[in-house]
Amino acid sequence: MYLENISSPSDLRKLSISELNVLASEMRMALISKLSRHGGHFGPNLGMVEATIALHFVFDSPTDKFVFDVSHQSYCHKMLTGRKDAFLYPEHYDDVSGYTNPHESKHDFFTVGHTSTSVSLACGLAKARDLKGDKENIVAIIGDGSLSGGEALEGLDFAGELNSNLIIVVNDNDMSIAENHGGIYKGLRLLRESDGKSDRNLFKAMGLDYVFVKDGNNISDLIDAFKKVKDSSKPVAVHIATQKGKGYAPAETDRESWHWCMPFNPETGKSLFNFDSEDYSSITGDYLLAKMKSDKNVIAITSATPTVMGFTPEKRLEAGSQFIDVGIAEEHAVAMSSGLAANGAKPVYGVYSSFIQRTYDQLSQDLAINSNALTLVVFAASVFGMSDVTHLGIFDIPLISNIPNIVYLAPTSKEEYLAMLDWSVEQNEYPVAIRVPGGQYISDGKKVTKDFSELNKFEVTTEGSNIAVIALGSFYHLGAQAAQLIEEQSGIKPTLINPVYISGIDCELLEKLKAEHSVVVTLEDGVLDGGFGQKIASFYGNSDMKVLNFGLKKEFIDRYNPEDVLKENHLTPRQIADDAINSIK
Amino acid sequence: MYLENISSPSDLRKLSISELNVLASEMRMALISKLSRHGGHFGPNLGMVEATIALHFVFDSPTDKFVFDVSHQSYCHKMLTGRKDAFLYPEHYDDVSGYTNPHESKHDFFTVGHTSTSVSLACGLAKARDLKGDKENIVAIIGDGSLSGGEALEGLDFAGELNSNLIIVVNDNDMSIAENHGGIYKGLRLLRESDGKSDRNLFKAMGLDYVFVKDGNNISDLIDAFKKVKDSSKPVAVHIATQKGKGYAPAETDRESWHWCMPFNPETGKSLFNFDSEDYSSITGDYLLAKMKSDKNVIAITSATPTVMGFTPEKRLEAGSQFIDVGIAEEHAVAMSSGLAANGAKPVYGVYSSFIQRTYDQLSQDLAINSNALTLVVFAASVFGMSDVTHLGIFDIPLISNIPNIVYLAPTSKEEYLAMLDWSVEQNEYPVAIRVPGGQYISDGKKVTKDFSELNKFEVTTEGSNIAVIALGSFYHLGAQAAQLIEEQSGIKPTLINPVYISGIDCELLEKLKAEHSVVVTLEDGVLDGGFGQKIASFYGNSDMKVLNFGLKKEFIDRYNPEDVLKENHLTPRQIADDAINSIK
Repeated sequence: MYLENISSPSDLRKLSISELNVLASEMRMALISKLSRHGGHFGPNLGMVEATIALHFVFDSPTDKFVFDVSHQSYCHKMLTGRKDAFLYPEHYDDVSGYTNPHESKHDFFTVGHTSTSVSLACGLAKARDLKGDKENIVAIIGDGSLSGGEALEGLDFAGELNSNLIIVVNDNDMSIAENHGGIYKGLRLLRESDGKSDRNLFKAMGLDYVFVKDGNNISDLIDAFKKVKDSSKPVAVHIATQKGKGYAPAETDRESWHWCMPFNPETGKSLFNFDSEDYSSITGDYLLAKMKSDKNVIAITSATPTVMGFTPEKRLEAGSQFIDVGIAEEHAVAMSSGLAANGAKPVYGVYSSFIQRTYDQLSQDLAINSNALTLVVFAASVFGMSDVTHLGIFDIPLISNIPNIVYLAPTSKEEYLAMLDWSVEQNEYPVAIRVPGGQYISDGKKVTKDFSELNKFEVTTEGSNIAVIALGSFYHLGAQAAQLIEEQSGIKPTLINPVYISGIDCELLEKLKAEHSVVVTLEDGVLDGGFGQKIASFYGNSDMKVLNFGLKKEFIDRYNPEDVLKENHLTPRQIADDAINSIK
Repeated sequence: MYLENISSPSDLRKLSISELNVLASEMRMALISKLSRHGGHFGPNLGMVEATIALHFVFDSPTDKFVFDVSHQSYCHKMLTGRKDAFLYPEHYDDVSGYTNPHESKHDFFTVGHTSTSVSLACGLAKARDLKGDKENIVAIIGDGSLSGGEALEGLDFAGELNSNLIIVVNDNDMSIAENHGGIYKGLRLLRESDGKSDRNLFKAMGLDYVFVKDGNNISDLIDAFKKVKDSSKPVAVHIATQKGKGYAPAETDRESWHWCMPFNPETGKSLFNFDSEDYSSITGDYLLAKMKSDKNVIAITSATPTVMGFTPEKRLEAGSQFIDVGIAEEHAVAMSSGLAANGAKPVYGVYSSFIQRTYDQLSQDLAINSNALTLVVFAASVFGMSDVTHLGIFDIPLISNIPNIVYLAPTSKEEYLAMLDWSVEQNEYPVAIRVPGGQYISDGKKVTKDFSELNKFEVTTEGSNIAVIALGSFYHLGAQAAQLIEEQSGIKPTLINPVYISGIDCELLEKLKAEHSVVVTLEDGVLDGGFGQKIASFYGNSDMKVLNFGLKKEFIDRYNPEDVLKENHLTPRQIADDAINSIK
């Protein structure tokens, strides 16, 4: 086995082409074996085996510097740069993260997880090299849908004027997470079909030199191409056509499902987990599809992650022109939604908390200043969301709730969520964001009759005294548990409040609480800084009311266990109850 | 005079081409006359006179819908849509804003002020039209540097797949605010020089049809081109080459200076105001230029607004390759800076508060997670900054200070600012942002010896008791005035604190204050929600300390008088003093 003997890229350079081809098979087997037990980005990495070998064969990492876009395609790079054990031996699987990470290896330069950043980051490395008078190659590796993101296009435009070495490898597998969308990808297809000769060439239009590699899974062709551009004195794009999921039949066929996988049976390709039960994604898709049928102006929008809002390929087909996948282009999704609403449509944009970060200015300028009625559904916005440091869902409250005019809602159950969604779609006064609850899926069957247009009106769910627990969204149930413990432990029955609104406070209710309460406890499923609880603390600043804000510390956490993080942040029911009781002593 | 008789675009359509040419002269005179007294976007509008006439001649606004990018080029559109008085009669000059505004006219669809949004907004209007089954033309008008912004490129990519009417007029005047940068503009130049025939065609590469108009200041040619694309059933880019500043000699020659003007003498072109005195822009440029000479790794970056960080054309020349204008591409500027720092350079990016909003995700992901040492200098971050609703500088505190790892500093004087700048450039542990003070320029000659690497250490500037005034950045002097009034009025000498840090609090000092103080007053020059003071209120939530947070209400304010806004927000020294004294009664 060759792979076992590769502890740095220099070991690779001793192999012949036919040996490299064997190595590729070994790497592919290692990927299938690890990911079938561990889960991860499957299709993208299977497609990049040969290109990664060729890159490390031609370039001299880490002197030459690779920047992987999103870096979900860096598994093979990790295998070849001293981290093979994490792919060969189950006990080492978790030694590495799923993305590049400078703390892991000197061959990684950035912790990356969002798309479309590699070209700009690489431009920075290149320009700094030029200032120092150094000569190494800087190589950005981008693809898998990332090219349509505005940041990548800004980077390409800048690269077009950078008068020195920069190599941009465009891994074109004809896919994003789902199928590709947009004129750029039509152009790439024409380039593939014309052996790189089509005049619809984005890279040349941006001022870059251009090289095409027809078979991006052929090591020998790739080595030739990379040798040709090595030490280039100007920016060049190397467009390689690869096959997503190559070498594993189910992934070659169903490229969307196999973009990322949970553990599966490698013989059958069947997932070891069953996801057929109802969740916030499926009910969102079901609701919207029904709504579309009765109202042709309802339109659902995704930026390359259709299934998070429940739109499987079948549902997309059913929705027809009332469903739009804009590709990886979150800024466009928000701005276009504002335009949709301005001309009478009812847009609903479903997006991960971590990715809505890419659109602050569009939320503020295109949407909020214009008060256009987009319904923004924010998924995985929770400590129970994605746990990679690059995909945290704990910053959206400060991000969204401090923009004027946006109504940010926090449902606590399925029923409340659907009621909010329906209210939002039907109103046309405000941009509305809904923070889909994280953690346990709760459906209590209660009919929700609240009129959400009476803004910032909190709901008192249990009347009590002395202590008021204001528990937001997915932490409502944590608040209820804490309230129960407080009562059991102290005999004091706290008032329990579902605030419903994140973006504003119920001054009238807060004022009234002063009569029978001396402590207010706030709970939120996100960072405290700039968040919900601090608004309540500020409200009571000039009074005798004590306020305890519970939430997460402002920090980047990585690959964490939610239970540990909750405990560290004093967020167990017992800790909350103890703190509350102590404060009234 | 024709202009006086145009109260809607239909009046325009009754005129012959030669009459339209006379109208163009009248409009140009009106622009020069108004802007010489009032100030505004000069060059951009002078270049767009003929194109705007032709657009309104061919299309039927408001059924056909125009979306102006940035909308600083919409003055002529306003003249032709019932708002001519605001350009003809001084007493009506302020009847209109400097941007499109749906509250002003049914011919305007969005309040816009940031760049690069028009294509996405127009895509939304077009898609909503298609859902309804309507047939009007949707026309985006973009140019003047906006094309390089990621949002615009995402929009173009999407447009390339939109199978229906969308007309994108690209007003190519070869300029941004300063000269254009990036491969896109090199491509536009090749198109201009080849009469539209160059194969470096971004629009075709994105999947759009393409029409070129060589003389974009010729009404008749423009009318022909627009007639050709009217009712097009697919997206088409109409590339028109115009002359920025056309018709006013000084503006034709010095296009950068005349992008925007203060009132001037129309005969000499001389500004009525003298800006030669030192300010935060000039000292930033001077400091950086000196630094660059002693350290080749220091590099200054702008996104199309070089003069805000003091880089006049002469200074840019002097800085050479140590100064980069990335064009309108804020996301790229931040991400590239992270790359620069990762490879040993010392990047300094100067940017308006309103435009740093475009980079939240880059600040968080590309920069902060990687802890790369960019120095970000944030200008016009103040109630005394720009007062158009689209250019407010009052939201950056919640935006930046709640991102982990970023150190956000608030200097109170020239001396403190320069000390921070120097510390930040020389350290390589943290991304640092510096909030340049708004309002009066204060230089007290004091030597600053503080070690800023001891994070979150507030400075007590006056020891007192009972009341502590924590006054941030440009509101420090307001805090000092309030403290003095408190002492005069009540005999209580308050403690006065310069917190220095926006992104963290000095828990040790705050704890110590409890001994001799019962009220803490916080002051910040921005919105309260998600800001600095609320962190202090939260800190003291579980204590007897009263906290009064002073700052701005979370709302979009437009074309305001700062004094009025301060008064409405209880931010005069007298109001603050009264509130503080009342709270200790």
